[in-house]
Amino acid sequence: MRMSEGVEWGIHCCSLLAALDDGETLTGGRLSEFFMVPRTYLLKNLRALSRAGILRATTGSRGGYRLTRPAREITVLEIVEAIEGVEPAFHCSEIRQRGPSGLPTTAYPAPCGIAATMWRAEAAWREVLRGITPGEIVALGRREVPAAQRALTHDWLARANADRA
Amino acid sequence: MRMSEGVEWGIHCCSLLAALDDGETLTGGRLSEFFMVPRTYLLKNLRALSRAGILRATTGSRGGYRLTRPAREITVLEIVEAIEGVEPAFHCSEIRQRGPSGLPTTAYPAPCGIAATMWRAEAAWREVLRGITPGEIVALGRREVPAAQRALTHDWLARANADRA
Repeated sequence: MRMSEGVEWGIHCCSLLAALDDGETLTGGRLSEFFMVPRTYLLKNLRALSRAGILRATTGSRGGYRLTRPAREITVLEIVEAIEGVEPAFHCSEIRQRGPSGLPTTAYPAPCGIAATMWRAEAAWREVLRGITPGEIVALGRREVPAAQRALTHDWLARANADRA
Repeated sequence: MRMSEGVEWGIHCCSLLAALDDGETLTGGRLSEFFMVPRTYLLKNLRALSRAGILRATTGSRGGYRLTRPAREITVLEIVEAIEGVEPAFHCSEIRQRGPSGLPTTAYPAPCGIAATMWRAEAAWREVLRGITPGEIVALGRREVPAAQRALTHDWLARANADRA
């Protein structure tokens, strides 16, 4: 079971967009340049984030992507679900109802205990991701991202917006 | 992100094998008949469960699969990992180190905050699955599996072993 790399890209993009000043945006091209990821595939993920109401794409000379809300109001779970979908990873095909001891469907009013357990585990996973926002990840990451990189990122963001002023 | 259906089959098979009497086994053919799942693909999953030390395959006239240990000593997590592997679903490709503000790898002694968060969520998921055994699932399922099916299953298991006595 493997999550698409679009999830990694999406969370990083939202964390970077969370650092923009008011009125600033970053185009898909700029985001793909910053993270060195394939532009076409990144755009597909950015569109999914827009459809989910996490990003807003604006057009015009200062157009591009920005968060629709303050980063503290966006959860990592929203980003993951926008890209991976909301379907559970475990799919129950009700095999308990098949074979030599299977009964008609109406004999099974409650979900299968195995499916219920698997979904309970997924709920615990979602609960962690619902409890953290990209803003908090940026804060958590402060210790791990070297100060020199933070300064370079700040300069790059300023240039990315100044270049088209 | 979708888990293989082999996980569903594997947990159901272990739950059924947990109901066997001492010395009884079920062949891959019998298990695929009981759950009406494709034999070849089920055998692939049963072999993975054997490699993981969850099932033991014996040969001979009464040969087949059985659990290597009492069901209460096997966790659902073991079954899931035997079939899906132990790799995390979220893969970190360290995109924070790339692009215009990236620094040499030695500048990043700690894991990325985004990866750490995603892995913390996966740990919560694993924790739920580590806390439950197929034996407990069988017990939990008692309410959901109709009594009539339990009786039919009991009869089927008895016949499956008697047929080759």
